[in-house]
Amino acid sequence: MFYDDDLKELFRQVEAGNLDVERAVECAREASFKDLGFAKVDNDRSMRVGYPEVIFCPGKTAEQVRDIVAYMMTRKTNILATKATREIYSEVLSICGDAQFNETAGTITIERYSNEIPDSYIAVVTAGTSDLPVAEEAAITAEIFGNRVERIFDVGVAGIHRLFSKIDVIKCAKVVIVVAGMEGALASVIGGLIDKPVIAVPTSIGYGASFGGLAALLAMLNSCAGGVAVVNIDNGFGAGCMANTINKLK
Amino acid sequence: MFYDDDLKELFRQVEAGNLDVERAVECAREASFKDLGFAKVDNDRSMRVGYPEVIFCPGKTAEQVRDIVAYMMTRKTNILATKATREIYSEVLSICGDAQFNETAGTITIERYSNEIPDSYIAVVTAGTSDLPVAEEAAITAEIFGNRVERIFDVGVAGIHRLFSKIDVIKCAKVVIVVAGMEGALASVIGGLIDKPVIAVPTSIGYGASFGGLAALLAMLNSCAGGVAVVNIDNGFGAGCMANTINKLK
Amino acid sequence: MFYDDDLKELFRQVEAGNLDVERAVECAREASFKDLGFAKVDNDRSMRVGYPEVIFCPGKTAEQVRDIVAYMMTRKTNILATKATREIYSEVLSICGDAQFNETAGTITIERYSNEIPDSYIAVVTAGTSDLPVAEEAAITAEIFGNRVERIFDVGVAGIHRLFSKIDVIKCAKVVIVVAGMEGALASVIGGLIDKPVIAVPTSIGYGASFGGLAALLAMLNSCAGGVAVVNIDNGFGAGCMANTINKLK
Amino acid sequence: MFYDDDLKELFRQVEAGNLDVERAVECAREASFKDLGFAKVDNDRSMRVGYPEVIFCPGKTAEQVRDIVAYMMTRKTNILATKATREIYSEVLSICGDAQFNETAGTITIERYSNEIPDSYIAVVTAGTSDLPVAEEAAITAEIFGNRVERIFDVGVAGIHRLFSKIDVIKCAKVVIVVAGMEGALASVIGGLIDKPVIAVPTSIGYGASFGGLAALLAMLNSCAGGVAVVNIDNGFGAGCMANTINKLK
Amino acid sequence: MFYDDDLKELFRQVEAGNLDVERAVECAREASFKDLGFAKVDNDRSMRVGYPEVIFCPGKTAEQVRDIVAYMMTRKTNILATKATREIYSEVLSICGDAQFNETAGTITIERYSNEIPDSYIAVVTAGTSDLPVAEEAAITAEIFGNRVERIFDVGVAGIHRLFSKIDVIKCAKVVIVVAGMEGALASVIGGLIDKPVIAVPTSIGYGASFGGLAALLAMLNSCAGGVAVVNIDNGFGAGCMANTINKLK
Amino acid sequence: MFYDDDLKELFRQVEAGNLDVERAVECAREASFKDLGFAKVDNDRSMRVGYPEVIFCPGKTAEQVRDIVAYMMTRKTNILATKATREIYSEVLSICGDAQFNETAGTITIERYSNEIPDSYIAVVTAGTSDLPVAEEAAITAEIFGNRVERIFDVGVAGIHRLFSKIDVIKCAKVVIVVAGMEGALASVIGGLIDKPVIAVPTSIGYGASFGGLAALLAMLNSCAGGVAVVNIDNGFGAGCMANTINKLK
Amino acid sequence: MFYDDDLKELFRQVEAGNLDVERAVECAREASFKDLGFAKVDNDRSMRVGYPEVIFCPGKTAEQVRDIVAYMMTRKTNILATKATREIYSEVLSICGDAQFNETAGTITIERYSNEIPDSYIAVVTAGTSDLPVAEEAAITAEIFGNRVERIFDVGVAGIHRLFSKIDVIKCAKVVIVVAGMEGALASVIGGLIDKPVIAVPTSIGYGASFGGLAALLAMLNSCAGGVAVVNIDNGFGAGCMANTINKLK
Amino acid sequence: MFYDDDLKELFRQVEAGNLDVERAVECAREASFKDLGFAKVDNDRSMRVGYPEVIFCPGKTAEQVRDIVAYMMTRKTNILATKATREIYSEVLSICGDAQFNETAGTITIERYSNEIPDSYIAVVTAGTSDLPVAEEAAITAEIFGNRVERIFDVGVAGIHRLFSKIDVIKCAKVVIVVAGMEGALASVIGGLIDKPVIAVPTSIGYGASFGGLAALLAMLNSCAGGVAVVNIDNGFGAGCMANTINKLK
Repeated sequence: MFYDDDLKELFRQVEAGNLDVERAVECAREASFKDLGFAKVDNDRSMRVGYPEVIFCPGKTAEQVRDIVAYMMTRKTNILATKATREIYSEVLSICGDAQFNETAGTITIERYSNEIPDSYIAVVTAGTSDLPVAEEAAITAEIFGNRVERIFDVGVAGIHRLFSKIDVIKCAKVVIVVAGMEGALASVIGGLIDKPVIAVPTSIGYGASFGGLAALLAMLNSCAGGVAVVNIDNGFGAGCMANTINKLK
Repeated sequence: MFYDDDLKELFRQVEAGNLDVERAVECAREASFKDLGFAKVDNDRSMRVGYPEVIFCPGKTAEQVRDIVAYMMTRKTNILATKATREIYSEVLSICGDAQFNETAGTITIERYSNEIPDSYIAVVTAGTSDLPVAEEAAITAEIFGNRVERIFDVGVAGIHRLFSKIDVIKCAKVVIVVAGMEGALASVIGGLIDKPVIAVPTSIGYGASFGGLAALLAMLNSCAGGVAVVNIDNGFGAGCMANTINKLK
Repeated sequence: MFYDDDLKELFRQVEAGNLDVERAVECAREASFKDLGFAKVDNDRSMRVGYPEVIFCPGKTAEQVRDIVAYMMTRKTNILATKATREIYSEVLSICGDAQFNETAGTITIERYSNEIPDSYIAVVTAGTSDLPVAEEAAITAEIFGNRVERIFDVGVAGIHRLFSKIDVIKCAKVVIVVAGMEGALASVIGGLIDKPVIAVPTSIGYGASFGGLAALLAMLNSCAGGVAVVNIDNGFGAGCMANTINKLK
Repeated sequence: MFYDDDLKELFRQVEAGNLDVERAVECAREASFKDLGFAKVDNDRSMRVGYPEVIFCPGKTAEQVRDIVAYMMTRKTNILATKATREIYSEVLSICGDAQFNETAGTITIERYSNEIPDSYIAVVTAGTSDLPVAEEAAITAEIFGNRVERIFDVGVAGIHRLFSKIDVIKCAKVVIVVAGMEGALASVIGGLIDKPVIAVPTSIGYGASFGGLAALLAMLNSCAGGVAVVNIDNGFGAGCMANTINKLK
Repeated sequence: MFYDDDLKELFRQVEAGNLDVERAVECAREASFKDLGFAKVDNDRSMRVGYPEVIFCPGKTAEQVRDIVAYMMTRKTNILATKATREIYSEVLSICGDAQFNETAGTITIERYSNEIPDSYIAVVTAGTSDLPVAEEAAITAEIFGNRVERIFDVGVAGIHRLFSKIDVIKCAKVVIVVAGMEGALASVIGGLIDKPVIAVPTSIGYGASFGGLAALLAMLNSCAGGVAVVNIDNGFGAGCMANTINKLK
Repeated sequence: MFYDDDLKELFRQVEAGNLDVERAVECAREASFKDLGFAKVDNDRSMRVGYPEVIFCPGKTAEQVRDIVAYMMTRKTNILATKATREIYSEVLSICGDAQFNETAGTITIERYSNEIPDSYIAVVTAGTSDLPVAEEAAITAEIFGNRVERIFDVGVAGIHRLFSKIDVIKCAKVVIVVAGMEGALASVIGGLIDKPVIAVPTSIGYGASFGGLAALLAMLNSCAGGVAVVNIDNGFGAGCMANTINKLK
Repeated sequence: MFYDDDLKELFRQVEAGNLDVERAVECAREASFKDLGFAKVDNDRSMRVGYPEVIFCPGKTAEQVRDIVAYMMTRKTNILATKATREIYSEVLSICGDAQFNETAGTITIERYSNEIPDSYIAVVTAGTSDLPVAEEAAITAEIFGNRVERIFDVGVAGIHRLFSKIDVIKCAKVVIVVAGMEGALASVIGGLIDKPVIAVPTSIGYGASFGGLAALLAMLNSCAGGVAVVNIDNGFGAGCMANTINKLK
Repeated sequence: MFYDDDLKELFRQVEAGNLDVERAVECAREASFKDLGFAKVDNDRSMRVGYPEVIFCPGKTAEQVRDIVAYMMTRKTNILATKATREIYSEVLSICGDAQFNETAGTITIERYSNEIPDSYIAVVTAGTSDLPVAEEAAITAEIFGNRVERIFDVGVAGIHRLFSKIDVIKCAKVVIVVAGMEGALASVIGGLIDKPVIAVPTSIGYGASFGGLAALLAMLNSCAGGVAVVNIDNGFGAGCMANTINKLK
């Protein structure tokens, strides 16, 4: 309700006498979020940014997540909760029998509405098997927002021929998510080989001077290849969002 | 020369008797780069990643940059050198009278060939006036690669109404570059308002606990808005590349 | 006992022959703290800084906390223990049946004496639901010190319209506490919109390059808005103290 | 133009037929900032946050600062530019003969309008002589925004008796700014002695493991005294703003 | 399949009519790795880098490790899994009764094939007893790759005479691995005494400002002795690999 | 065995024909340490540095600690093990019924031999109650090495009058250990008040931007008071050693 | 003037009628420092901590240093200014012709009064020639405070036999200052060989991952040898103070 | 002079009456280093570690370097000074007309004696042209120590085909030095392709989140390829030493 377009429309309605002032203000507010006290669910996020509000679980009690889900189920939208635990899932299951839990990805999904899915697809590539949880979070995020995903796992630079054998499916994607821990070199290598946007996701896989993913993060930020941008360590969700946004471009 | 497609083509030529083995190997190599001794200019980068090799000036002598430019001028491509100084520019001018130097951005450009330019445009947004050098590097990079750019400068969150007054031109871009130093909050705010990919560029503008742009970098990586990805501090060039790649998507 | 005023008074008493020298020294010392061996409870803190000594639980055994509480109960003051666990609470309950435990905030409170409460109020604002524990610590601290608190939760910049809907209650506070994790942008946005002091509390909510709240901390320290000052990560208590001090100003 | 109050008023004007829609939108925008292309000067900041827009010089050319000053001089406001150099000052002098430059503080000021000044004052305290530049930036900021300032310099903990000799003037301030480098202990010591809000400003004075002020910053954030909040390293300006905001509270 | 030699050979086969094009491409791919979906086992690593693919356990489920082992057992190679837990070992035991688990080193080994072992040996030296787990990982790695290892433990600089008593066996090794935590000084001391390559392994042994091994890592990287190179904190495996590579040189 | 004096003596013995060459070498080695395989116990440390070898428990198994204790018991020396757990203590008890465990300090001690104790004493001062574990480690270390210790606990700068009431006992010590977490200001304050060496021990007490004691460490290293030196975070043992060394000076 | 002893004496004087109250307070204050406005020179520091106030030059103008020197010359004390430049020296020379400047150490000294010098001496040891500036700052500090100093330079662990050749002069000192950059191993090696207190001074000598002396600092803090304490990077002055304090102990 | 072998020999000489005790001790000392006061030149380093003492210039005055060179010229050894400036070179030239200065590498060399050179060679590979200075330091170090070097420059992963075209010359080296800045991915890629030891040298080439080479350093330490070890940022000298040591192995 903050853009000139919306402003104009409401002014027009008021000018036309279709809306009184008090109601105009109330309208603007009601349409946009639901106040649950401990949370304000953002109802017009989908219209604004192209995907619905998503529940980030850490720091929330299982009961809080359940109540947010309960409200969102009244809004006719697919539901995604990330970084979830099995305990939170149990709580959600108690109010929604068809909620799905992906243990690898740590996601809870309730998918009751079909999206229009573009022909183009998103490639999700990992350097190693240990990077799967983050890659799956990215893939599931992209899928529930209505995208086709191709998974290419364990093609890191320690055996770079594995990458080359899959390079065609990577090159034909509209956008590529590269998930890698340790030194994160895979993002630069792919960035130097293709003409599609590369979203690099550093993971916390590693130990010692990996410093919880810092090494991979810095490597990806310093990529000598140009068309690479980076999201937070282990942020499969963010990569999935960004890829969704790009894949939906016309 | 590393993909199956290229491999197949060369195999076919050899199979057909059009190419002997020694020559096939030589071909593969010659087409792709020029060895100047101190540098190997990457001739097929444009075909591979969608934009030509670009010269990163720091750590190179003015003479090295000049020699790379001299070679590239024989290759019929537009030329971009980044993070350049006036001294390097003088050296380049000595062999190319129509080279341009943008002092704000630190770029040298030689633009002799016209690109096909998409209808869609890239928005380059800054939080403050001090972020201009990085923003201009991004804009010039995007322009020389063949894109239309809209500049929206100094709309940071200390006076957020300035942003809202320009939100329409931002929302209508195909991809948005947000350039901000200090706390870098602008990227999150824009990311929460639009449904287009946001490329966040932290700048080193600030002092003290800005730690050379680290504060803005971390803020942008931790954006609570989903469709935001980040490039290196002060990396206007990288943002321009990424935006070019996205703007050229069909 | 360190200020000129106190010094003068004691000198005067001695000069007047009302106090002998040995006793004068003893007096000064006795009035100010109680030595429990493992702890020296600061009795005149309230007179000095405007709020009583508060028990910081980490690193103390449950028995130590209980014994400090036991002593403080003899001093006719309200009691606050922060970062407490349920185990510590049980120990305290054994000597004080009306002790309260707030599980979200991790606070133990014993409130038997009423404070004079100013008309003005403190606003406690959070970016997300996950920031509640820190926000509650701040609110409870402010309340037990004798302040009225307004809670405004989950109005972060990913859906900034939620903030604008509550901006009036924020603007009318005498001082505002902004609690946010991840990129901490909310503090800057509010700081740019109101003319009241903003106390920013970064939280450790986030993951990866949040580095335990460092990202939010740095962002808040680098706020482009002027009237913002920052306390330690997750330091709801410190924010509550500072807000109490400001709210009590005349 | 973002609050319900403003929204209501404009709706009312439109409803009353006093304003057409296009003009209503234009109005909202015009009142609030001036677009200079490279800068958007925030005209209603003073109304919003209680002090006018201030020019942060680093990263701006002398010409840009001059042009912003030139515009602001048309707005009937006192002008402050921070972190300025003598070169920038010369440029400003060329258009405004009564501009003042404080070399210690790095500030340019043009003070033509008198503010209402509260009876209460702000104390600015430093640990050492080397902290003067930051302290002066804070003091000058507070003064140009209309406050009385008391300066107490060089009372650090290496000779803590110097502090105690000045404690009365510190205790009687409405708000205290403590400026210290090295280990920054002074903020905690003062915070433990007085019942007024303490704004701690770490400075970059020090060397080695001071890490450009990081040591003092961390020490101040971890203050064991409660009523202390912190601004960025060397951020005298921010401390002055925050103190101004507090000193103006009623 | 990426080197000119391999390329030539395949071209020759195709030229000679011994191989059709489709099959040539397939060949190249098949020889080099096995795709298990969640993992792509690198079959020609041994030929390429001189030791077989090794399983890094963290981030993998016990079932994933078991399945990779199961496949590798079909390839007639010795098997090594590092950073393994007892739980993973149980899973591996279920398919391979002669798998060995070294609890100190965290390694699972299946050794059925004998390597050719050079006459020269690798010395593995530790500063303290607490460094044994990392030292054993290095030693076991070197041994399963076919090397003789001499262990010299607990000769750190707090009692440097212990080192001198063992200096002969260290000097006669072909390559020396030095494992040390805390301040990591042992690597420099040994590096200054012998003319063999020293591979320094910092360990996370220590506390406080050891920062998980960072202190030792930085010390080793800054060694004033010349012939010292460093691997990651706690990376016994990497040191074992590097030492194997050097010990196999002719 | 590395000093000229020792060298001379052995040369003299050999010259005098009292010692053959092989035996001279063996002698030198035997006197100085015992090789247990996983550990080399440093027998002449006491003669060399003034206190016996001490067992650092982290990273060692309970069995390893027990075996080192068992050997040391044959050497007629008091025994100290630091950072020990109750589990390790049980193992040690099984071979030595009079071993003592201090749960606060995490120390195991076996004290059977009396040291000569100097008249002067060591003061151990803490800022808070939570710093006790580290302070006790320091005190017990100093005591078992033969020193008298005065404990002054919980006199931090949030209530600095508590410190002044105890300043006499601190001033009369030969050396002072100051143990403090959070901002660690106490070390500077004491360093500015007394003419005795101050050994500052930062503790990991704190949270958020304390970064595990880093804040206190940096503060202490940057002390504006001159006679302050620092040991590792939580390193009560090191402080006890240093204080012992100083207290034994004549 | 904050200790009970002083307090008692003043009370006694007042009690005896020798002193009126106003004057008693004034006395306390006057004796202890001189207020120059920009600086408060600490006159009783020598009595309090055993050495006079010293001028830390960075951040002060040459004029400020000169004025502080001018005042101190009236106080009959030797004068030391550290981290001084040649420009500051010129300014000081203008008021004091016998001021000395040590270019290596960056110290200005004015030595007109003789101290009582203990028989024992301080050893100042460096790892390399590049560490001389810091070592000289330490030595000159110790000397002007009245100590005998032995310099042993360039005996780092890359050639450890150089150290052993000088070990006797090191062992016979009362206290040893070890100055080292890069990996700082020398402090641990010496700490493990002698029974005297070791003050370790990390220097910023090095590059890359030395991070301005951080590597040496961390190494020294993590020393496996017990009797080692550390001062700030490049803090020769602090080491000299601490050594002075220890060398003066009886 | 610290090893059993040397010890035995001296004992034997003394036993045989060929050497008196005083002289034996003197001998040991004289042979090994020359004391210049500010420096102790390590004469037996070559015998000990396989290459002569090398002069590290930073922190030394030009005169100090010249005097060390002057002494070393009397010792009949080739001379290498690293990180040298043109100013230092001038000073050295004044005493040695055939000293060479390599401006790119910052090395001064005096090469008058020929080494025995192995048949095998060292490959020095760089990612970019900007990495040349570090690569040349490594190459010149290796060459003056008596090794053949092959230079392969500018083959970074942004155009990985350039690497593959040179892979044969890399594979045939006995040891490979990989020099790379930015994200340092080249080391991992090469480490995954060859069976020779790889010495990775991170460079400070880059900006922003390169943090002076930290990004490349961490990436190389976390290499997923096994046979890679790392030296300090920009430490071409160290890499040259290590490579020399390996190349000389038999």
